[in-house]
Amino acid sequence: MIEIYTESFAGIETLHAVPAGKKYQPLPCVLFYHGFTSSRTVYSYFAVALAQAGLRVVMPDAARHGARYDGDEKTRIRQFWQILHQNMLEFPALRDALVEARLVSEGRLGVGGASMGGMTALGVMTHYPQARSVACLMGSGYYLSLAHTLFPPLEVHNPEQQRQFDEILRPLAAYEVRHQLANIADRPLLLWHGEEDDVVPAMETRRLQQALQAQGLDGNLTCLWQPGVKHRITPEALDATVRFFATTLQVTPA
Amino acid sequence: MIEIYTESFAGIETLHAVPAGKKYQPLPCVLFYHGFTSSRTVYSYFAVALAQAGLRVVMPDAARHGARYDGDEKTRIRQFWQILHQNMLEFPALRDALVEARLVSEGRLGVGGASMGGMTALGVMTHYPQARSVACLMGSGYYLSLAHTLFPPLEVHNPEQQRQFDEILRPLAAYEVRHQLANIADRPLLLWHGEEDDVVPAMETRRLQQALQAQGLDGNLTCLWQPGVKHRITPEALDATVRFFATTLQVTPA
Repeated sequence: MIEIYTESFAGIETLHAVPAGKKYQPLPCVLFYHGFTSSRTVYSYFAVALAQAGLRVVMPDAARHGARYDGDEKTRIRQFWQILHQNMLEFPALRDALVEARLVSEGRLGVGGASMGGMTALGVMTHYPQARSVACLMGSGYYLSLAHTLFPPLEVHNPEQQRQFDEILRPLAAYEVRHQLANIADRPLLLWHGEEDDVVPAMETRRLQQALQAQGLDGNLTCLWQPGVKHRITPEALDATVRFFATTLQVTPA
Repeated sequence: MIEIYTESFAGIETLHAVPAGKKYQPLPCVLFYHGFTSSRTVYSYFAVALAQAGLRVVMPDAARHGARYDGDEKTRIRQFWQILHQNMLEFPALRDALVEARLVSEGRLGVGGASMGGMTALGVMTHYPQARSVACLMGSGYYLSLAHTLFPPLEVHNPEQQRQFDEILRPLAAYEVRHQLANIADRPLLLWHGEEDDVVPAMETRRLQQALQAQGLDGNLTCLWQPGVKHRITPEALDATVRFFATTLQVTPA
């Protein structure tokens, strides 16, 4: 049996899942981030599956999503990259709140996510060694190039618009995996992608795999591809994520 | 807080979600069916959201899915229609098990599902008046025509193959909404579809809506469309499903 609570950490409303009776016990813990225009509730099956495997799971709503959504779809659709950046900015506060509440056993904190959430997880990994293991499903760490085709923040037809575009993306440059290969190679990393992904191209994951391999930095990398799958999470992807965190965060069998 | 259990009813393993402390109490209850090549766990966010609203939720794995999957993907991909039919055949046993265990309060049993699960819910509605209200998300009740383009059970190049094809589909004819409009018009029915659905065309839902309207049978029908959405469940679809069942199954506010 598992229990699921609605709970705020660091002022952010989250879905909080635990194995039965272990709410206040230090546990291996995963912070998991949902996708764009979705919500923590729609992605809560990750919380169900991970908690069933013995983990604590905390799933925040991203800015302008779920409990933080004001219904303004037109504005939100232009703010993918700002919201992604805000996810990364909010990570340390969530991490600190969980650690201070003694909910994480021995630093065993994992970070995962799908789509925009996967991009968040990768960005967090570049900056925060406290993310002990990271899973990025159908995501990308090449933000600056991807922003031209995936939810661009504005249309660029003149130099002023180019300046605005660059200004919006600028804070993400430091998180680009391109400049951060060493910082994502030193801990376990799982990348999963459907080969026919029609939203975030599977090539984004291939590119990162090849970059790590080229520098001999792929010793902690697990790459999984699923043929014939578009931009969706399959049972196989979910199972792989659960196995990955159960192993890398050393969950004790019940 | 909600609780989620793994539990068998009528010999079928299910995910069973309840508001905290109410596992053995009669409650308004929803049987919810997952989509093809997916699993009860991947769709468990419906259980989370519905249980948070005060409902009992039971989600079985379909044949050849989840705990009932033998890993034989090649066989499964040709058995969409047989598996759909089996879902319908298994409904009465699940219903009886829940009722006999006194888990359903005053007959307040709803049936819902998405994709293949939505098609299951519609088929169940045609035959079982005990399904007090039904939600079909991105589904269809026009099985015989859809089977030619959606996961056809075999390729038809000669009369013998045509005979086999017809034989496989034959059991579904009685569940076709075409012949059953009166039996889906007498109770609350929610249809939801993303307008850009690239798997089950949104036209399937429009067709049913128009058929009911043409006969003045749309008094219990709610149709919701979401522009720009492919074959996926959005937060808006999930919210609409929760509101629909909370209302039609008369959930008492906590």
